[in-house]
Amino acid sequence: MSRNILTVPILKVEDHSSAPVEDLLAVEEPLEIRLCDKTVSITMRTPGQDAELAAGFLLAEGILSTCEQIRSIDWRKNSITVRLAAGVEVDFERLERHFYTTSSCGVCGRASIEALRIQGCPIVPKDSLPVPSEVIHRLPQALREDQRVFDRTGGLHAAALFDASGALLLSREDIGRHNAVDKVIGAEFLGGRVPLSDKLLLVSGRASFELTQKALMAGIPILAAVGAPSSLAVETARRFNMTLLGFVRDGRFNIYSGASRIQ
Amino acid sequence: MSRNILTVPILKVEDHSSAPVEDLLAVEEPLEIRLCDKTVSITMRTPGQDAELAAGFLLAEGILSTCEQIRSIDWRKNSITVRLAAGVEVDFERLERHFYTTSSCGVCGRASIEALRIQGCPIVPKDSLPVPSEVIHRLPQALREDQRVFDRTGGLHAAALFDASGALLLSREDIGRHNAVDKVIGAEFLGGRVPLSDKLLLVSGRASFELTQKALMAGIPILAAVGAPSSLAVETARRFNMTLLGFVRDGRFNIYSGASRIQ
Repeated sequence: MSRNILTVPILKVEDHSSAPVEDLLAVEEPLEIRLCDKTVSITMRTPGQDAELAAGFLLAEGILSTCEQIRSIDWRKNSITVRLAAGVEVDFERLERHFYTTSSCGVCGRASIEALRIQGCPIVPKDSLPVPSEVIHRLPQALREDQRVFDRTGGLHAAALFDASGALLLSREDIGRHNAVDKVIGAEFLGGRVPLSDKLLLVSGRASFELTQKALMAGIPILAAVGAPSSLAVETARRFNMTLLGFVRDGRFNIYSGASRIQ
Repeated sequence: MSRNILTVPILKVEDHSSAPVEDLLAVEEPLEIRLCDKTVSITMRTPGQDAELAAGFLLAEGILSTCEQIRSIDWRKNSITVRLAAGVEVDFERLERHFYTTSSCGVCGRASIEALRIQGCPIVPKDSLPVPSEVIHRLPQALREDQRVFDRTGGLHAAALFDASGALLLSREDIGRHNAVDKVIGAEFLGGRVPLSDKLLLVSGRASFELTQKALMAGIPILAAVGAPSSLAVETARRFNMTLLGFVRDGRFNIYSGASRIQ
């Protein structure tokens, strides 16, 4: 049995009768992410691709920008330690400081967006990655066919990277949507393929500010969500010139930002 | 227009044609939670019921246990400050320490469960709150009828509290499922009605460890989810004798823990 699925005995109730059955659960366990000798995050995640998760997280937070900055990644059950190459300095305080406050508006969404700019989030080039709408329509089906654990537990989110022709390059599943995205982006980051300026990212659920941040920090020009985006996801996408698509399903989608990339 | 919905111009694509329309978005903004003069959390949430969110969060984290410990709650746009009554001491270090590590297994799910016990999470009494299965079957429809914003944006999670007869007492919606739960429980906490030992909590999506923790810390004996539970949610519910139900929809549900409470 795979490490990310657990079988448990349960009772299945239908109307007024019940029956004991075996059920499959998506595994949730804490992962400690350590940078050098410091714990920088503890996140609940589905085990598997922990090194990618840690690398993707550190990229999204603006701590790392190239895979050459990493000397080693040591894995111990539920704990990942990322060590830095000689001479690489990291602003540890950035991990503790909160960038959500500005003098003009206090804590607010605009300050969150401004914080992204300060940590070096790139503006997506205007003419990058034009994609025909047929390609967008095909994405959800391609992801579903690739989502193996979800079909069995009903409990996992998924994220997948596609090229401009709609070919699925890589997908990951996790109990947390942000983890699935970190795993996809982290795998590309560790492979030296970031910025992902000719790729599309599809997520199985909704698009939040956090997911938009992760895609932007990886240089992805098009983020497509099967569910709804939030107000701050839309504002952030518009500010950084990213294409944000929502409700991508059943032959339809909404363009919230960056319509010029969709043909 | 309500503070938690935003209208934006978008392009709607259907097959090969597109049309400009107005779309409704669920608002996402950061909220800073301050305890005395210290920032203890910054969470992305949908504005509204911020005091309840902060109170529910502090209860779930084991920082507060009765509403008499609170002297005042001051609201400023996107920032909530909770001040303590005279003589109330708070273990600020608890908010910074991570309880996910034990000497025997390192960082792991068992350590997460053990951490709950250490912070005073109560065991649910065995004979509490027996509920007929008909009541469970009716919960999702009652929540849907009450979910106003969701119907308009498609972007919000919901949580609702019910009594043993299935009457909906209180529901809240938020971009984050954990926030919706904090708002529901926080409202009851501020009203002096915790522990909620004769109530059921329904959540619109999946049941994670975090949601199980929140329900347990409020003394709720039955947690029902429209979606799937995680492995750690099930283990935690079993450890603290809570009833955990998953896939509660279409006249069916699964009992993962505490079957004796369902008649």
